[in-house]
Amino acid sequence: MNLRTYKTASERRTIVEEISKTKLPHIGNFSFSEDAAGNKNCENMIGGIQVPIGVAGPITITNSTETYESYIPLATTEGALVASVNRGAKAVTQCKGVRVVAEKVGITRAPVFKASSVFEAQKLIVFINENFKKLKELSEKTSSHLTLLEIKPFTAGRNVHLRFKFDTQDAMGMNMATIAVSNTISFIEDETNTTCIALSGNMCVDKKPNFLNFIEGRGFRVSADILISENVIKETLKTDATKILEVYNSKIISGSLLSGSIGANAHFSNILAAIFLATGQDIAHVSESSMGITTIERSQNDIYISIMLPDLPIGIVGGGTNLETQKEALSIMNLENTQNIQQFAEIIGGAVLAGELSLLSSLAQNSLACAHKTLGRGEKI
Amino acid sequence: MNLRTYKTASERRTIVEEISKTKLPHIGNFSFSEDAAGNKNCENMIGGIQVPIGVAGPITITNSTETYESYIPLATTEGALVASVNRGAKAVTQCKGVRVVAEKVGITRAPVFKASSVFEAQKLIVFINENFKKLKELSEKTSSHLTLLEIKPFTAGRNVHLRFKFDTQDAMGMNMATIAVSNTISFIEDETNTTCIALSGNMCVDKKPNFLNFIEGRGFRVSADILISENVIKETLKTDATKILEVYNSKIISGSLLSGSIGANAHFSNILAAIFLATGQDIAHVSESSMGITTIERSQNDIYISIMLPDLPIGIVGGGTNLETQKEALSIMNLENTQNIQQFAEIIGGAVLAGELSLLSSLAQNSLACAHKTLGRGEKI
Amino acid sequence: MNLRTYKTASERRTIVEEISKTKLPHIGNFSFSEDAAGNKNCENMIGGIQVPIGVAGPITITNSTETYESYIPLATTEGALVASVNRGAKAVTQCKGVRVVAEKVGITRAPVFKASSVFEAQKLIVFINENFKKLKELSEKTSSHLTLLEIKPFTAGRNVHLRFKFDTQDAMGMNMATIAVSNTISFIEDETNTTCIALSGNMCVDKKPNFLNFIEGRGFRVSADILISENVIKETLKTDATKILEVYNSKIISGSLLSGSIGANAHFSNILAAIFLATGQDIAHVSESSMGITTIERSQNDIYISIMLPDLPIGIVGGGTNLETQKEALSIMNLENTQNIQQFAEIIGGAVLAGELSLLSSLAQNSLACAHKTLGRGEKI
Amino acid sequence: MNLRTYKTASERRTIVEEISKTKLPHIGNFSFSEDAAGNKNCENMIGGIQVPIGVAGPITITNSTETYESYIPLATTEGALVASVNRGAKAVTQCKGVRVVAEKVGITRAPVFKASSVFEAQKLIVFINENFKKLKELSEKTSSHLTLLEIKPFTAGRNVHLRFKFDTQDAMGMNMATIAVSNTISFIEDETNTTCIALSGNMCVDKKPNFLNFIEGRGFRVSADILISENVIKETLKTDATKILEVYNSKIISGSLLSGSIGANAHFSNILAAIFLATGQDIAHVSESSMGITTIERSQNDIYISIMLPDLPIGIVGGGTNLETQKEALSIMNLENTQNIQQFAEIIGGAVLAGELSLLSSLAQNSLACAHKTLGRGEKI
Repeated sequence: MNLRTYKTASERRTIVEEISKTKLPHIGNFSFSEDAAGNKNCENMIGGIQVPIGVAGPITITNSTETYESYIPLATTEGALVASVNRGAKAVTQCKGVRVVAEKVGITRAPVFKASSVFEAQKLIVFINENFKKLKELSEKTSSHLTLLEIKPFTAGRNVHLRFKFDTQDAMGMNMATIAVSNTISFIEDETNTTCIALSGNMCVDKKPNFLNFIEGRGFRVSADILISENVIKETLKTDATKILEVYNSKIISGSLLSGSIGANAHFSNILAAIFLATGQDIAHVSESSMGITTIERSQNDIYISIMLPDLPIGIVGGGTNLETQKEALSIMNLENTQNIQQFAEIIGGAVLAGELSLLSSLAQNSLACAHKTLGRGEKI
Repeated sequence: MNLRTYKTASERRTIVEEISKTKLPHIGNFSFSEDAAGNKNCENMIGGIQVPIGVAGPITITNSTETYESYIPLATTEGALVASVNRGAKAVTQCKGVRVVAEKVGITRAPVFKASSVFEAQKLIVFINENFKKLKELSEKTSSHLTLLEIKPFTAGRNVHLRFKFDTQDAMGMNMATIAVSNTISFIEDETNTTCIALSGNMCVDKKPNFLNFIEGRGFRVSADILISENVIKETLKTDATKILEVYNSKIISGSLLSGSIGANAHFSNILAAIFLATGQDIAHVSESSMGITTIERSQNDIYISIMLPDLPIGIVGGGTNLETQKEALSIMNLENTQNIQQFAEIIGGAVLAGELSLLSSLAQNSLACAHKTLGRGEKI
Repeated sequence: MNLRTYKTASERRTIVEEISKTKLPHIGNFSFSEDAAGNKNCENMIGGIQVPIGVAGPITITNSTETYESYIPLATTEGALVASVNRGAKAVTQCKGVRVVAEKVGITRAPVFKASSVFEAQKLIVFINENFKKLKELSEKTSSHLTLLEIKPFTAGRNVHLRFKFDTQDAMGMNMATIAVSNTISFIEDETNTTCIALSGNMCVDKKPNFLNFIEGRGFRVSADILISENVIKETLKTDATKILEVYNSKIISGSLLSGSIGANAHFSNILAAIFLATGQDIAHVSESSMGITTIERSQNDIYISIMLPDLPIGIVGGGTNLETQKEALSIMNLENTQNIQQFAEIIGGAVLAGELSLLSSLAQNSLACAHKTLGRGEKI
Repeated sequence: MNLRTYKTASERRTIVEEISKTKLPHIGNFSFSEDAAGNKNCENMIGGIQVPIGVAGPITITNSTETYESYIPLATTEGALVASVNRGAKAVTQCKGVRVVAEKVGITRAPVFKASSVFEAQKLIVFINENFKKLKELSEKTSSHLTLLEIKPFTAGRNVHLRFKFDTQDAMGMNMATIAVSNTISFIEDETNTTCIALSGNMCVDKKPNFLNFIEGRGFRVSADILISENVIKETLKTDATKILEVYNSKIISGSLLSGSIGANAHFSNILAAIFLATGQDIAHVSESSMGITTIERSQNDIYISIMLPDLPIGIVGGGTNLETQKEALSIMNLENTQNIQQFAEIIGGAVLAGELSLLSSLAQNSLACAHKTLGRGEKI
């Protein structure tokens, strides 16, 4: 049986129902455009998966020029996550908002070439440096939405990895970058006597946790911080500065170092996965995006908290953002119309900080008593 | 405005529509139980996000006792992913099926305690070893579905992380494990003069990429392998053994080592994210699950390929698996009725191998020509 | 020209002098036994390299049963290192001594086997578990100084790495472990239809920085801690608790996390390299031993500091410890006669903590003024 | 008792002998200048440690402009190491020499600053970029041997790490770099309203294994490769291409990936430690230098092998290179007179490749027979 021979989701669903002796009425109940999704997002489509979406916020965010509020759409099946981010957003907003710096690093694609020796590998690097302008021209020819920013070479023996970095405007841009890179390959091969072994040589690095992206950044690099006052710690977060610092030292620092984590945080991945899913990002990117660092310092009885997300490959056009429910989720953040990807990155940064603050506070609140009661709702770990 | 004061998804959605000056008809079109999802999965729920789901396969899988076929449900917005896994599944099935070993390692939860000194930390470790039976009794009292397998201690200074490992039957089991651990805390604190700082001390490690899980395993550890014949490489994968090996060496080995990746693979995260989303797994777990190793060896003109997934925290009951569309997706794999989590792990292993094989072949196929044409569909990178 | 054809260091030195048109009088001035060193430590020997050795201390050390003082021999060419450790040792001793827990983990050697499939790999693991007693017998037959503690298996595809762990008494034991493992290979191969590909399969892990040893430990795992009083911080370390904590947060935590270091410390490697060189340890082990964690907490105006060394492969017999000057260095620590390797591990732990404390204090002392003066002696970075 | 109150090594040695009730005649037998070493290399000096030095080679090396031979001085206590490197050097020379590319990356020093917020952190980065010329002037004012190449900023929250990179000519240059950086601090602090927390903020990264140096390089980055012919594999290395490749795949790739090593090699640290000790390098640098990648490919019955050393902080003037025996060791390589640090890096690269080739061959040679005999000399693991 070959599903590809059937034309419609309905036909394919019927076949799958027969084979697996089951009924799929809910999967059949979807409201996105079958043609668009089937052509661009998903082969052998039989319908849709539905995931509950909740809204946290508002959260107050300050960038270098303005202060604004946003709601945070979160699609998740994990009870208490929305409540947790919501509480963090409340605390943040009570303290006049989180400061966010969102820097567009650019999306990367790194083909790998093979030279005949380390000498020839070295020559390829020289060639790339000397021909950057030509390579820029070739790659930018493939799209008006794309700018080549840098090509950074790395070698292992005679393997040469060329890490192209692009600004792809409002799109996450991975496909655009791939096409742009592919347009430079024959020029490089012809002029250097090397061979392109693969258009993607795992130095991009796309969808794998890795130290290269952590150090060099990818997509957006976002930093956020705020001072949470003693009063808000007490009234909203139900704990105190001493306990939060204890949790930070023993959990985030000691635990992350001992476990060989990339960075040190409480649960970046939870917030990122939920926003990514709600807004049509590629959720496989959770693998690389969940790296990052949370810092906490005590300042008298207040708490200074910061988060740093080095690797956030996001977009507000293209890919899953074109789907109906995802478009709506973006519109909740007022991003659908303004096409403001910078703001999207900022809101993600703010939401992640809110999530970290709330979870660390829950743990701190339970720290003395954690033996004596089971966890209630809103006290997620 | 506080969304928590509203009772129904519809009311909350209306409020969000007003605030954000938008319409959310598609988000409002969901068919899961509002009560169940709102209570267990998602606070401040306003509706559902829909993601297209496609089906790849069938794939033939062999475990140590039997051979069977399965379809693979994949919820994704990334064009060509389903087609890619489908092609890999076809190749695998043409070669009599992928061998899979799925070992249940167990789910882990690691509270962190603080002792007054390294001496007291040492005493805590001795205490834990001597009182394992009592701790097993205390933790297992909280659920009939849970068995304590091991407590492994780690220290940094006077911080003591106790990594509890549980068999939680068909559930992923993180919540169950947390409740079980929380029931041991007061006993430990009272008898050892230490303080529990946090019920989760980041050595679990839950939802963060890290070397501890990679080395020790978490959830399921799955290995799979197969020999792909020259003929199938040529006819189905449209390439040859030499080229696949070249791609493997330059991309998977050279690229992964140079980038400081955890393990070395092409795109585990793509397949995992799509299956996780389809079947109601926690997609934040993509952060840790996407670590792992693919190996390729040449054997004459055939190719031996293996994958190893050390960290697969999965379940077929509880969490998102209770949602209607997710339940249906599990039923496509015939897992809903048989409650066979072992088989679920095996199918995931097989699907990941299929995805690796297909992508590496696509890259190999393009390797000589990659300069001369842009990528078409089904030739994903 | 082949140096191996010459019998004495003097003859070989003369040849090398001729070829390189130089004179080597100092290299010729050595006082260790030429025969012993030439046979056991160094082929093609032409003489000796001399490195200055200084002495720091005394340092007061407390283990779980007693308190004692020791001097610390340090062979180094890095000005200010001995002075720095000396100052730390003084501070530690003024605060009644450093508490140390030294746990003998055991030395490891991990051969790698290749099976025909993941199924056969699994069978090998079962076989190893079922035949541990026989493997223990076979490996312990090779030396009366060696005890097999554990065999831990790891797999990637059909590669099976068996990590043997041994107690080798007072010796570092790597050679002893290799011989012991080699005596088990034919039994394993014959009974399992697998092939030993290499006696060392890089999972030992010997002489490479890696997360496996960091997590599982190797040789000795040593923890040490102490509370440094406000007065000693002021009088001996010339700084205060606030500044030390600032340096700790920004340098050890922020810097180590951002750089993807294994653990987080200031300069473990400096102290370890100097003690290793002085006492005849294998200095290539600095690669793995320099991983580890320093923690600092503020307690009022005092400072709590701890260090954790997970991977310390050391010995007081065998290898370089038989050389004359190295033997003398061990005797300075009163270790030559008592054959007390436990104490050796403890002194190393204490010395490393002293070195960390001193360097962090120097940096703290300079923190406000670091712009205004260049570094003097004893203010090492 | 305070050793610092005594003036001469002899006086201090006598005191140490009395306290430790031992005799130290060999430590007292040294021939380097007591004044120079005592002032620059080692406080509280009591004498010298002697380590046997052997010579391997000659090895034939080809850089982009010439081919030359060199001997390799190795100070070690590990039997069989010199013999192993010697055999590798012979094989390499029989195959017309190893190709080496040695790139001077530069030595790094990274002070850490603290800003009041992520906004101020961002401003500091902008300031650094805008004032590079001034910072170059300030740092280069401190030495005529130093050139500032780059300042690369990294942030975690409001911590800003500025990674200064310098060319320090023939010196390793760490001290020079520190002084240069310290001369820029007050300018930065005064103009930016930030505080320098520590002159070294662990992003240098000096003497710790870490992914930052592995990715960005430090000191020298050296690559080397060669094709070893079937005949040399058979006659000199006593094995064949098939077996070497098996060892490479199972040990270097599978073992290094599974163990979470930084890079993948057999024993870089052994060769580096021995050359560093012989030539007066700082042996604490073994911690970072031992990272790197070895690649092996089969080409018919020949073997292509490459090594890549990303982080080699070396010098031929200053530090321990001024000591008498170390100077002589450098002169064996003809480096003392020509002051050619580039060549020094090349020889190290060649020696490391020779060591890798020899050890992998020994393991391959034993692979089938490793069950049946214990290891003899020259068959190191």
